[in-house]
Amino acid sequence: MKAAVLHDYDEALSNPVFVTYEDVPDPAIKGPNDVIVRIGGAGVCRTDLHVIEGIWRSKVDLALPHILGHENAGWIEALGKGVTHLKVGDPVICHPLITSGHCLACRRGEDMHADESEFPGINVNGGYAQYLRTGARSIIKLPETLSPKDVAPHTDAGLTAYRAAKKASRHLLPGEFAVVIGAGGLGHIGIQVLRALCAAQIIIVDRADMALKLAQECGADFAVKADGSEVDEVLRLTKGKGAEAVIDFVGEGDAVAKGLAMTRNAGFYYIVGYGGKIDIPTIDMITSEKTIVGNLVGTYPELIELMALADQGKVTLATREYRLEDANTALHDLHHGKVRGRAVLVP
Amino acid sequence: MKAAVLHDYDEALSNPVFVTYEDVPDPAIKGPNDVIVRIGGAGVCRTDLHVIEGIWRSKVDLALPHILGHENAGWIEALGKGVTHLKVGDPVICHPLITSGHCLACRRGEDMHADESEFPGINVNGGYAQYLRTGARSIIKLPETLSPKDVAPHTDAGLTAYRAAKKASRHLLPGEFAVVIGAGGLGHIGIQVLRALCAAQIIIVDRADMALKLAQECGADFAVKADGSEVDEVLRLTKGKGAEAVIDFVGEGDAVAKGLAMTRNAGFYYIVGYGGKIDIPTIDMITSEKTIVGNLVGTYPELIELMALADQGKVTLATREYRLEDANTALHDLHHGKVRGRAVLVP
Amino acid sequence: MKAAVLHDYDEALSNPVFVTYEDVPDPAIKGPNDVIVRIGGAGVCRTDLHVIEGIWRSKVDLALPHILGHENAGWIEALGKGVTHLKVGDPVICHPLITSGHCLACRRGEDMHADESEFPGINVNGGYAQYLRTGARSIIKLPETLSPKDVAPHTDAGLTAYRAAKKASRHLLPGEFAVVIGAGGLGHIGIQVLRALCAAQIIIVDRADMALKLAQECGADFAVKADGSEVDEVLRLTKGKGAEAVIDFVGEGDAVAKGLAMTRNAGFYYIVGYGGKIDIPTIDMITSEKTIVGNLVGTYPELIELMALADQGKVTLATREYRLEDANTALHDLHHGKVRGRAVLVP
Amino acid sequence: MKAAVLHDYDEALSNPVFVTYEDVPDPAIKGPNDVIVRIGGAGVCRTDLHVIEGIWRSKVDLALPHILGHENAGWIEALGKGVTHLKVGDPVICHPLITSGHCLACRRGEDMHADESEFPGINVNGGYAQYLRTGARSIIKLPETLSPKDVAPHTDAGLTAYRAAKKASRHLLPGEFAVVIGAGGLGHIGIQVLRALCAAQIIIVDRADMALKLAQECGADFAVKADGSEVDEVLRLTKGKGAEAVIDFVGEGDAVAKGLAMTRNAGFYYIVGYGGKIDIPTIDMITSEKTIVGNLVGTYPELIELMALADQGKVTLATREYRLEDANTALHDLHHGKVRGRAVLVP
Repeated sequence: MKAAVLHDYDEALSNPVFVTYEDVPDPAIKGPNDVIVRIGGAGVCRTDLHVIEGIWRSKVDLALPHILGHENAGWIEALGKGVTHLKVGDPVICHPLITSGHCLACRRGEDMHADESEFPGINVNGGYAQYLRTGARSIIKLPETLSPKDVAPHTDAGLTAYRAAKKASRHLLPGEFAVVIGAGGLGHIGIQVLRALCAAQIIIVDRADMALKLAQECGADFAVKADGSEVDEVLRLTKGKGAEAVIDFVGEGDAVAKGLAMTRNAGFYYIVGYGGKIDIPTIDMITSEKTIVGNLVGTYPELIELMALADQGKVTLATREYRLEDANTALHDLHHGKVRGRAVLVP
Repeated sequence: MKAAVLHDYDEALSNPVFVTYEDVPDPAIKGPNDVIVRIGGAGVCRTDLHVIEGIWRSKVDLALPHILGHENAGWIEALGKGVTHLKVGDPVICHPLITSGHCLACRRGEDMHADESEFPGINVNGGYAQYLRTGARSIIKLPETLSPKDVAPHTDAGLTAYRAAKKASRHLLPGEFAVVIGAGGLGHIGIQVLRALCAAQIIIVDRADMALKLAQECGADFAVKADGSEVDEVLRLTKGKGAEAVIDFVGEGDAVAKGLAMTRNAGFYYIVGYGGKIDIPTIDMITSEKTIVGNLVGTYPELIELMALADQGKVTLATREYRLEDANTALHDLHHGKVRGRAVLVP
Repeated sequence: MKAAVLHDYDEALSNPVFVTYEDVPDPAIKGPNDVIVRIGGAGVCRTDLHVIEGIWRSKVDLALPHILGHENAGWIEALGKGVTHLKVGDPVICHPLITSGHCLACRRGEDMHADESEFPGINVNGGYAQYLRTGARSIIKLPETLSPKDVAPHTDAGLTAYRAAKKASRHLLPGEFAVVIGAGGLGHIGIQVLRALCAAQIIIVDRADMALKLAQECGADFAVKADGSEVDEVLRLTKGKGAEAVIDFVGEGDAVAKGLAMTRNAGFYYIVGYGGKIDIPTIDMITSEKTIVGNLVGTYPELIELMALADQGKVTLATREYRLEDANTALHDLHHGKVRGRAVLVP
Repeated sequence: MKAAVLHDYDEALSNPVFVTYEDVPDPAIKGPNDVIVRIGGAGVCRTDLHVIEGIWRSKVDLALPHILGHENAGWIEALGKGVTHLKVGDPVICHPLITSGHCLACRRGEDMHADESEFPGINVNGGYAQYLRTGARSIIKLPETLSPKDVAPHTDAGLTAYRAAKKASRHLLPGEFAVVIGAGGLGHIGIQVLRALCAAQIIIVDRADMALKLAQECGADFAVKADGSEVDEVLRLTKGKGAEAVIDFVGEGDAVAKGLAMTRNAGFYYIVGYGGKIDIPTIDMITSEKTIVGNLVGTYPELIELMALADQGKVTLATREYRLEDANTALHDLHHGKVRGRAVLVP
């Protein structure tokens, strides 16, 4: 099959060619619960850039050459012998993790905290390719309203944004405020999820006018330009108190410190983006009684919940399609802030 | 009346005399909801040392000379005209904050996040004295089993420990672990609260053998000496995974980084002590999905809950009594780690 | 002042005159926390009919002659000496209960479970009048966007619907269903609250086409006519499983049994309307693991939350105005199902 | 193998012989995820009596002859080809349900609400036998401290009691009360779970002095004899208000009405026992804002939690052993209230 393959890390992201479009062996069924998916679309994610930079080398067991692509959807091509509840040809979306389902975390529904798992595109081959091997427990059948290439980015970008926004929605009451920092691929989904799940007023903070505009189309009530005055402006909108929830999809540079400053006493700061540091005196955490919440990709049931929102038109993805052979273009466009919403590779 | 008065800050805590035992005017009823309490006992707290050092100057509006003492219990001496549900002579314990009860935080029961409040001992005169002025909304009548001087430290030390331990108990399930860092004045209460409110196994981490021993008497299942190997030891006890909850009553030095390292993925790190910093890369928060929870003193209903535990013998305070005129001895003993449990000044 | 006064019970609701429009003494400030409100609007509620029928005699201490009206809004006319955070002329809405705020329920924010309280219109004189005496703790200042007569029914009808719908929204996930039985005065608010607070699909069940139409304007996704086939139809819409939440605003006749039958296993049946009985074998509760939830009017903070929804246009009341002297017309119209939304008396 | 087989229903439970001890074919591995367990102990449950009476015929698909026994523990005897995380000889306890794990309920951890499942002893052959076929997802490995015959009743009696008590413990605060109705096989476990998971004061209500005594050994704070005055006595103990939680392990006769009467306003009545009816006017649910909670057997993770409590000695079962060939004696002893705690059949 054809695939876009990573052969070398590029710490400065300075090379024009990150991945090579080439022929590789087809993946094959190995175990009774394996599933082969014919890729309909594979999302292009900032995490892919971080993998190319080599940031993830220290976090996971990752060997080159490697096929990127952890946001995958398509059609079932082949099934292991133990899989009886699915059938070839079904349109599906893939939860990003492959798990066996035996550990206590899985039995509690928290697959992403499984004792053992594989993460296609991160530590095994992913979906920048024509075919992908995954596990039966990762597969969610799509409703007829949804096409694989239109929803592929939901498996990671969407699911991560959904989980963080859902956590916030559990405590956000009418009359309260949610700040969303960053209206990119994740942020524009997060705003729609907040809009669907609670009645808080939503303030979007971003540097780019294009992103602010997208955010308002997605349901943000207030747009704040990140031009240096953003903390003051959020405090002004929230009567000097800050927001009950701040969801930070940037997580680097001064976003973190500013995000914490925008968080109201007794409020919650959700960290989703990464690259930076949290750095705060303990006394400030005590006197403010703030909570800082880390967010990983969501659970399998949460991806089903997100598909329900997509099916009902309550969350729509802004996507831009690229052919698989143009993976480098997509990655560079993302790196240079030229993608509105989310890029998707179509084989 | 007699009081122990702070006239000068002492940043190095190097003077033998921090406060002066002297005559000051009696406090008087000013408003309809005021209450004068004859002090039965006033707890001596590490926060008092921090006030003497001047740390709190930047946080609150604090003027010298100042009477310390934010952990107060005694008997009602006089009542404002609007107070009809209390009577002179009642034995009482005082919630640390004075509030009017009108703002939304108060109406939700979260007095310590009131829009406006006074904090005797911190920003108005406190209980290192014979009498204290507070507000009717701060007063909790004591059951007959409890004597004011035996429970005074519960109003802040106890209540703060209670709130943090109660938060942890809401998610701690049988088979899970709670680490308590620091078995001093707050920690030894926190252990008893955890013991009463959940079935998690409790691991105490402390440098001092005396504290470890006290912790085990309070119900800790495992004692780990903080001798440099404490993270490894906690990981060993938790099968390499860390604890679902870590409550850090130290909050300075390397306790914070170590506390976070002892926290399991998807677990909660509760910060109570202060003086240090939280400093963690955002990627580590994301991949671990940890939550960092700031903790302030608890609510009025929570102080009633704690009194129920005390009344039923489920939480007992280790206290050491000092005469009010010996306030300096108590403060120095605390500063030099010579107090087992909690010091209390008795006028 | 003028008031509409109940002099005699009417068990069959057969008399043309339920209440008499007449002159009565003005209410006066008695205690330091009293507030006199000049009524802008008083909602007319099915509970008023139940009071007239005499149903409430056994539940509360109620003496005739009595002024009905427990849904009150207007402007502050006079204040007791202890009330400093409000001022004469403020437009306000009144939480239905008068409480002192000292008991544990109040301190936890659950005013309606106060040890002691008064309920104007139920056990003391209410707002079918030009003026009303209430307490300072009942008063919520209205934003400029909201006029007293337009929001008065929110204090009980709206608040009760809000509380039940909010409880349901805490567990309703995307892809799940909420059934609302009865789209009258409470139901049409409940639908809007569900719409604002969660993404569940909403099924309205009602006998009247007018009500079904109103419900769909309010945001219901599916309308089911209560013509005998309603259980089957709800099961069909929910793929044979029933809804995760059923909110029953009728609570009498066969609504209760049908509501329970529409509730999915592990789901929640919220009972708000009354007049009928719950009658179910315990084995059916066990094998289905259903939960039956009683719902009383909401808390003071919840009325503030509802006002935020009203202020933002997320919940609008369908009201029909009547002059206070036409109270009997309003009550009869309600009794005969002629009121779309909610009737309001304007002095 | 030997088994105790039910050949005929006995509605009056009047026959001396309910089941026949006889030779039957051994169960065999059929699918890749099947597991054969050599029975170490099978609990005898009131539900077995209800099956013999024929009560369950209308609830499940049940054919005679049938091997009872839904509380099973033992050692792994054989494994299907797909089961790689278990090994022959492991001591194990069996979650009562066999599920495939694919439906949404299972993926959320709520196996007992699976779309499809088998229930050995209820709708397929159970553990009143030497061997049992179950599924890999039902198996929990026992710690070395626990012997199969000592813990077998935990799989249903224990797990059901655990789930109800755990639900109650999530809202029971210090100073509050929990009433347990019935201190039999389930009740005496429920008391221990409450004791381990919360600090509420526990009131046991039972007709039998033997049961009241057992309950106090298990940690009940107050014992109330069910002699007709039990509601008054519970109200007296709770200062006229009733208990915040009532867990009814009887669920028939006047227990239900009395249990609801013992429940405080805004409190929770948990129904576990069955045979009777819930019958309450809707107005009483509204004015009291009570909640009625149905309780089914717990989840797989909850059985692991309960095993942790057993392993730590926080919950101990009172059991009485019978040989498998004496199954009728055990069933009759249970029927006539002669079993203290729980009967267990040992092959």
